[in-house]
Amino acid sequence: MKIGVFGTGGVGQTIGAKLVELGHEVMIGTRDVAKTMAHTEPGPFGQPPFSAWLKQNPGIRLGSYADAARHGEVIINATSGTGSLDALHQAGDENLNGKILIDLANPLDFSRGMPPSLTVSNTDSLGEQIQREIPQVKVVKTLNTVTASLMVNPGQLANGEHHIFLSGNDPVAKARVAEWLATWFGWKYILDLGDITTARGTEMYLPLWLRLWGALGTGLLNVRVVN
Amino acid sequence: MKIGVFGTGGVGQTIGAKLVELGHEVMIGTRDVAKTMAHTEPGPFGQPPFSAWLKQNPGIRLGSYADAARHGEVIINATSGTGSLDALHQAGDENLNGKILIDLANPLDFSRGMPPSLTVSNTDSLGEQIQREIPQVKVVKTLNTVTASLMVNPGQLANGEHHIFLSGNDPVAKARVAEWLATWFGWKYILDLGDITTARGTEMYLPLWLRLWGALGTGLLNVRVVN
Repeated sequence: MKIGVFGTGGVGQTIGAKLVELGHEVMIGTRDVAKTMAHTEPGPFGQPPFSAWLKQNPGIRLGSYADAARHGEVIINATSGTGSLDALHQAGDENLNGKILIDLANPLDFSRGMPPSLTVSNTDSLGEQIQREIPQVKVVKTLNTVTASLMVNPGQLANGEHHIFLSGNDPVAKARVAEWLATWFGWKYILDLGDITTARGTEMYLPLWLRLWGALGTGLLNVRVVN
Repeated sequence: MKIGVFGTGGVGQTIGAKLVELGHEVMIGTRDVAKTMAHTEPGPFGQPPFSAWLKQNPGIRLGSYADAARHGEVIINATSGTGSLDALHQAGDENLNGKILIDLANPLDFSRGMPPSLTVSNTDSLGEQIQREIPQVKVVKTLNTVTASLMVNPGQLANGEHHIFLSGNDPVAKARVAEWLATWFGWKYILDLGDITTARGTEMYLPLWLRLWGALGTGLLNVRVVN
């Protein structure tokens, strides 16, 4: 399958590498290809610069947001939450039209120090903003409640017995995404919360998630819903 | 032990009845005793009016917030989040001084319809507001992430194998509350998230919790943290 992944950070890299490993044709989208390739400094967690990572992952192509959107039968938004709307506007309506957008982003604001706050919350969410501003896509919010390595490999933790959530207005799109989560990554517990307004719930879970990370000393954590 | 419980709603009743059953001396506090006893209409979920409930629970006394604060060696805040600060101000600093306040309240705003939003979130929380405005008490935020019947009986769900969280600035107060949660109610998985600012995390979890209720069709739910 042809997949466009927006965002060159750790989440985009982890998702992109896993999808290529599964045999998909991945193009990663960025704002400015030349600038992205010119970066030489390591990332915020000491990871190699994107150009070095790309050299180690020759199956992955890099293009503009518009290129990646045109390439993808499905688009995955792995940009930072504060850059997501800009990236999607740059992608061009004609390249997005009718496609499923899997939105992994969280509207985290690190500008006021740690722990971050949310730039949108409570009566709105990033997922809703994207769906409102880009009505051409079918937004399915998911995977935003776990760290990148867990997104693509839930089985590494508690035998995969923990939950991932889905929010979105289109039941058919949600069903397809649920199938991909199961077949691509091995998610066993997928819970459909309802329409895109339920993204408020999963985005507002982030402050708790960050505190759980602090308390447990690891971001390799998730919740299992029991009822 | 002498315990003051603020709030005559379902949470106050459930906690009060359980504590009396355990042999504690419970006084429930309310804004206006005469008015609370005069109510004859059923509660929002069809439960009997408070006066009828009190008749069925003769071990429980009713008083003003000041009476209940004076009575309690420890205070439990089970008022609605929007009324919590008023209630605590009415209780009188001299009656609260140095005591542990177990804060179960959530700042839910139902005025804009369902699902409710939060009246405070993101860069502040009700738990922090209480600690700031009433520095005489040692606030320990807990139990606000589960429905009332689960607060006092976690063992009824998944053999009690799910988590409750603690937030508060005073480590000794948190240790005592953790012991009470275990011995009074049987909580086995108690996770200390850190200082009172971590209450933002558990209060902001409420929107997800409400959506989980909607998706699962039951409020008898909780999360088990896996790592």
